Amino acid sequence: MPQDPLLKHLYAVILAGGSGTRFWPLSRRRFPKQLLELFGRGSLLEQTVARLKDLVPPERIYIFTNQLLHAEICRRFPRIPSHQIVAEPAARNTAPTIGLAAHEVLRRDPDGIMVVLPADQVVTKLGQFRNALRQACRLAETEGISVVIGLKPSRPETGYGYIRVGNPLRRMKGLQIFEVLKFTEKPNLATARRFVAAGDYFWNGGMFIWRATTLQRNLARYQPGMERLLSRIARAGGVRATATLRRLFPRMEKISIDYALMEKIPEIYAVTVDLGWSDVGSWSTVYELRPKDEKGNSQPAQSLCLNSERNLIVADRKFVVAVGVRDLIVVDTDDALLVCAQSSAQDVGKAVQELERRGLKHLL
Amino acid sequence: MPQDPLLKHLYAVILAGGSGTRFWPLSRRRFPKQLLELFGRGSLLEQTVARLKDLVPPERIYIFTNQLLHAEICRRFPRIPSHQIVAEPAARNTAPTIGLAAHEVLRRDPDGIMVVLPADQVVTKLGQFRNALRQACRLAETEGISVVIGLKPSRPETGYGYIRVGNPLRRMKGLQIFEVLKFTEKPNLATARRFVAAGDYFWNGGMFIWRATTLQRNLARYQPGMERLLSRIARAGGVRATATLRRLFPRMEKISIDYALMEKIPEIYAVTVDLGWSDVGSWSTVYELRPKDEKGNSQPAQSLCLNSERNLIVADRKFVVAVGVRDLIVVDTDDALLVCAQSSAQDVGKAVQELERRGLKHLL
Repeated sequence: MPQDPLLKHLYAVILAGGSGTRFWPLSRRRFPKQLLELFGRGSLLEQTVARLKDLVPPERIYIFTNQLLHAEICRRFPRIPSHQIVAEPAARNTAPTIGLAAHEVLRRDPDGIMVVLPADQVVTKLGQFRNALRQACRLAETEGISVVIGLKPSRPETGYGYIRVGNPLRRMKGLQIFEVLKFTEKPNLATARRFVAAGDYFWNGGMFIWRATTLQRNLARYQPGMERLLSRIARAGGVRATATLRRLFPRMEKISIDYALMEKIPEIYAVTVDLGWSDVGSWSTVYELRPKDEKGNSQPAQSLCLNSERNLIVADRKFVVAVGVRDLIVVDTDDALLVCAQSSAQDVGKAVQELERRGLKHLL
Repeated sequence: MPQDPLLKHLYAVILAGGSGTRFWPLSRRRFPKQLLELFGRGSLLEQTVARLKDLVPPERIYIFTNQLLHAEICRRFPRIPSHQIVAEPAARNTAPTIGLAAHEVLRRDPDGIMVVLPADQVVTKLGQFRNALRQACRLAETEGISVVIGLKPSRPETGYGYIRVGNPLRRMKGLQIFEVLKFTEKPNLATARRFVAAGDYFWNGGMFIWRATTLQRNLARYQPGMERLLSRIARAGGVRATATLRRLFPRMEKISIDYALMEKIPEIYAVTVDLGWSDVGSWSTVYELRPKDEKGNSQPAQSLCLNSERNLIVADRKFVVAVGVRDLIVVDTDDALLVCAQSSAQDVGKAVQELERRGLKHLL
């Protein structure tokens, strides 16, 4: 397949600074979800990078993360230039990070097109992903156009944001392109049901594509204070100017790109697609996505399920025996063990908060 | 309290050769139930020995066990003369062991009275135990009389043998003494209910008291082949004659004292008593006997139960978090983890059989 000349200008910006507690005890502050090997080979971050093969080479990939994870991520991605793996001096949500990335891209390539990708998602339909990214890139080449990947909703999920689209604009390589009417926040269940039934709502997975110049112009217009700070950092040398970065980055507003820009800017196209996508929100999502045996158990080789059904067992250091149990999540690590009802997977974070309240820092 | 002169002739024979799988993964072949610290201080065996304080001094205590456990038990009981901790060369059930013990006692004391005690039981009413043992000892002083401790049944348990008694003989220090009519095997539930309702059935906990001469005479009469082999071992030097023991002991019939004698001999008295007794048959018995918090959880200090009720958590090497789970047994060890429904506690043995079938010897 001949290389699309457009792709020469494509830069990936992977957001890998997330921290969370929903995958405790496997995830910890120094080892969050994006570093976990939950499905198949490699961590979610490694899979995110791997999905870009033949689309974006390592020298055009940027990974933004936090101080705690920086060394580990550098170790895992020796082919990505180390100055492109950036430790943000403070967590400022996605808008400042993406703005910072735009300046890095522009420094190298005035025609640079950025694809923003969260590092902690699952995409099972690789061909669709690659196709969608190519078409999005083609659309984003037009100055002023922002593109979002709109994910076909398969259920009335209340944990995701939605995108409402207007009339279809065109079809590209089997993908329907729409103009975006509105970004909406996480709905309640009734609203989510209505969204899915209506057919003109798509999940917002946080995957965006635009020219770096388009983004920069939008930031200058809608977030002028942020853009001024970003320009000062860029003039000082960008992400390599660590002292400046450390001084100015924390001064920016803590705000997501959705709030900061996407809900405000006029010209957004949605490339709509079914990616077999999940943001892997809890252990019960892991259970859903993993292969299971005929009794519905997802278990390691070193385990035995007797009269047990629909359990997720995660353990690699010891033999696990389940007897007469159903719908459980069992996660064993060196220093902590979780036994959780599938229906309570959303409460794992609460348990971790309680550990924090008790001062059990070594477990966080 | 002045020492009862009778007690000078009392010898304890503790049967600690049992092996089992129901307390896997805490119990292993080399670390069976009697060595586990399931309740309070010390293992069940250590508690069995401790209960004899002021009744039987260490120099009159015999512990019979198997080759695998011998060294560990010697290590734990430095005050018991090491030749009185006997490793049986083969498992032959209780009758040959008790017969062997009788010869050891007779060698030292022709007036010796033996109390036979299983090593893996719980007795919560220590005063009652000591009183019952004293009265049983007094009864057993009479040549020809065998005494069994009859335990007041608190529920229609199908896992125990029962003793049917006849008319009461007398009261001794608050204890009712009966003549035993019959030993019966484990009943089904309907029969067990009838037994408990009838009032003349008691649990047989395997605690027996008799003069060594009485036992020997009964063995000679009802198990003459066994008694001949036992006499040959005794003439060679008893349990210290390890070569002879190794040669002759395995030739004896594998038979319990209940079948071999108790169901056959005529004059048996039952000292009936409520000892707060349990043979601790499974993890669910452990749950019942352990202290619990207001939610019914029995858990170690290093654990957190969130929206969780009636769980038994056994773990001393890591922090355990339970979220939204009920009626579970969770037992964590270095190399194995059990997660079992309370209602399936009886199936733990089946799981261990499956491990054996898979050749996972290191886990047994």
